[in-house]
Amino acid sequence: MRILITAGGTSEKIDDVRAITNHSTGQLGCLIAEAFLTQEITVDYVTTAQALQPAAQEELTIYTIDDTHSLAEMLDSLLQQHTYDAVIHSMAVSDFSPVQSLSQEQFLDKINQLIVRQQPVTKEDLQLFSESTQAKETKISSNTDQLYLVLNKTPKVIQQIKQRQPETMLIGFKLLVDVPKEELISVAYQSLQKNQATYVLANDLTSIHNGQHHGYLVNQNGEVEAEATSKGQIAQLIVKAVTKHV
Amino acid sequence: MRILITAGGTSEKIDDVRAITNHSTGQLGCLIAEAFLTQEITVDYVTTAQALQPAAQEELTIYTIDDTHSLAEMLDSLLQQHTYDAVIHSMAVSDFSPVQSLSQEQFLDKINQLIVRQQPVTKEDLQLFSESTQAKETKISSNTDQLYLVLNKTPKVIQQIKQRQPETMLIGFKLLVDVPKEELISVAYQSLQKNQATYVLANDLTSIHNGQHHGYLVNQNGEVEAEATSKGQIAQLIVKAVTKHV
Repeated sequence: MRILITAGGTSEKIDDVRAITNHSTGQLGCLIAEAFLTQEITVDYVTTAQALQPAAQEELTIYTIDDTHSLAEMLDSLLQQHTYDAVIHSMAVSDFSPVQSLSQEQFLDKINQLIVRQQPVTKEDLQLFSESTQAKETKISSNTDQLYLVLNKTPKVIQQIKQRQPETMLIGFKLLVDVPKEELISVAYQSLQKNQATYVLANDLTSIHNGQHHGYLVNQNGEVEAEATSKGQIAQLIVKAVTKHV
Repeated sequence: MRILITAGGTSEKIDDVRAITNHSTGQLGCLIAEAFLTQEITVDYVTTAQALQPAAQEELTIYTIDDTHSLAEMLDSLLQQHTYDAVIHSMAVSDFSPVQSLSQEQFLDKINQLIVRQQPVTKEDLQLFSESTQAKETKISSNTDQLYLVLNKTPKVIQQIKQRQPETMLIGFKLLVDVPKEELISVAYQSLQKNQATYVLANDLTSIHNGQHHGYLVNQNGEVEAEATSKGQIAQLIVKAVTKHV
């Protein structure tokens, strides 16, 4: 039995010294990996340099990525090399990646280019703000009172998984912040359907603190099949769901 | 003798799960702290939860901050409580902090508000982009093809230091990326003058790799007083400069 786990959070470069990061300690991913490894299941573990990593052992291979692009390439390569019984995608992946940064002067200049045309601005015109004004800077100058960052949506990496391996069991994660339980379950279910997942672990940031971590395992009927109140319990839920299913 | 060291990199929240971070492992700060501690000098060490930290010992106290605002408060409090012989400010501090995030629709709407006035847009009008469009979101929705982030310049925390303690010896850091040596030294010297530092350690990201770390200690005459090629050597340079000076 071979399992692929992603954990930690991606980081998208703004310049050579700054990045937009998605918070994730990687602690939950470690516990999930360790729970599988205890049962002598082979684990391929994709994570970032900043995240906590499970202790080295024979059945474990760790692969390190940084941004959404390198994650997509790594998953592509692993899914071509191996057949996985299950993929547990717990990594917090950036939804947006910076494409342009503008000083106040550069931003003003672009707006005034649109103003002189004297006609309403459409979505297509916004392309102007993504176009570079000069050679790409290696470090953004701090010589402006305000900075404007333009970010593009990143491709949904999770959708690659079932496309590459329709037979694998996919467990996704959905983290929201301070929403009613019904909304959390409903959004998790939508994500399950969109990504052809078998389960989605739904959790709310406001229910993660002091060792507590409330999680709901949402199934393909949109129901909460199981519930956990700590990271350790979530790891156990997932191992149980996978070993029962495959 | 009592020394204040800042190390690591600040992180500015975009929402509850995303942040703009300044890369810094904190490794150099650890080596500097350890070099002072070896000489039984008391060290107050301000860093972030993500950065490497020196091993616990009697003369060392660690203070943890996350963003520029909490760094400013912490320094203010420490500089009021203690008199420092020297402050070594090696932390990578964010120059900008997010104040607003706009979806494509929200951004378009604001631009069109400016367009209907049929007059050139000035810096003052840009205020519109910082104004909130709705209750602050706890997690930015990914339901837009592009995202626009407006960031304000953060106050220069380093300037507080000599204002609070004119007698302390301040060592600043200047990291640039891929510039000629002359430019690096000149920018470091400007920063020294602006912040009333005694020395600035100038370094270029392209000269930091594989254990190598090229650094120039720029003095109050704008000259390179000493040079180092590793983090350990930089730590030694700084300890020597401080113990000679105070």
